[in-house]
Amino acid sequence: MEPTDLAYIAGFLDGDGSIFFQLIRKNDYRLGFQIRPSVAFYQKTDNENILVWLKEQLISGCLRRRGTGISDYTIVEPCEVRRLLKELRPYVRLKRNQVQLGLEILEALPSATSPGQFLALCRRVDQFRDLNYSKKRTITSDLVEHQLRLRGLLEPQTNEVTEPAHLGSTSACTSTPYGSEGATYWVARRHVSGSGR
Amino acid sequence: MEPTDLAYIAGFLDGDGSIFFQLIRKNDYRLGFQIRPSVAFYQKTDNENILVWLKEQLISGCLRRRGTGISDYTIVEPCEVRRLLKELRPYVRLKRNQVQLGLEILEALPSATSPGQFLALCRRVDQFRDLNYSKKRTITSDLVEHQLRLRGLLEPQTNEVTEPAHLGSTSACTSTPYGSEGATYWVARRHVSGSGR
Repeated sequence: MEPTDLAYIAGFLDGDGSIFFQLIRKNDYRLGFQIRPSVAFYQKTDNENILVWLKEQLISGCLRRRGTGISDYTIVEPCEVRRLLKELRPYVRLKRNQVQLGLEILEALPSATSPGQFLALCRRVDQFRDLNYSKKRTITSDLVEHQLRLRGLLEPQTNEVTEPAHLGSTSACTSTPYGSEGATYWVARRHVSGSGR
Repeated sequence: MEPTDLAYIAGFLDGDGSIFFQLIRKNDYRLGFQIRPSVAFYQKTDNENILVWLKEQLISGCLRRRGTGISDYTIVEPCEVRRLLKELRPYVRLKRNQVQLGLEILEALPSATSPGQFLALCRRVDQFRDLNYSKKRTITSDLVEHQLRLRGLLEPQTNEVTEPAHLGSTSACTSTPYGSEGATYWVARRHVSGSGR
């Protein structure tokens, strides 16, 4: 893409878009939760041509019409979110902290193979609550920790819960071939190897 | 400014900004009304640094904190609005029609010296109502026409009221030295020459 197109998209994202990471309950995953990244753009459905243009530029993601007269274009595939955040990073101004935090989480996700490492990443996901002034967040890392302990996946005496794991720079995209939304499930799936799933 | 800065500002404007032209009642002007252009950017006051940065780039305009936790940065000087719209035009996507219409009005304003020509421009200002889905507009060109007729400034038999005047490309900025907000009053002031104002 042209630098001016990337800069435009960064401005549009700063103006009326959102970068947010969520913890999603996934009962069929061994760790029971998924870290889901999202980059979302919103617009009145009457003006959704701008979202169509964005989708043409960014290729991935999903454009939806809500019943409220608002459309949104959202990208949740971790590889695509990571690629986009890296491309927009030089131009984003208002959401710089979200871009940086999101990239750190996405780069650490593939190597967060233990429950403690996963929980450490969940703690970082919590930080989006403050960055985005989010009031609706119901699933926090405390809930993840509680569930992991209930299921005996975290040892009470270990420090790895409270000490963030080393967040390496291993690339999810280069080390593992992901399909659509594959990487969001990856950490959990690491723990069900051998289950036949 | 760098092209990527202009593209970023265009994206930010498309995402959460506004381009609007208004008819303002000015009882001390001979024609009684002013055409006021505005380019506005909004943001939570907590994030107003981005508006400070915009003001540093665009130099003119006014940054205000509203009581609602929202700040806005608005440019109303016609010369500055015209300069900005011309610079952003290559990059704006969502508000392309507003940019084009605004530039046409601003370029025609200095040569709209008769009440009929002024009214023709007011008709074009009305078009922002539809472009911006504005529901709050109370002063329309119909009201301007009504007032001009009441004051005998429009002849019933003339065609110039309903036929838009030729909109020349005379530059307000190059033909007339304007002070702060000067150009918004210019059309009206043309008609009080000799009044000592």
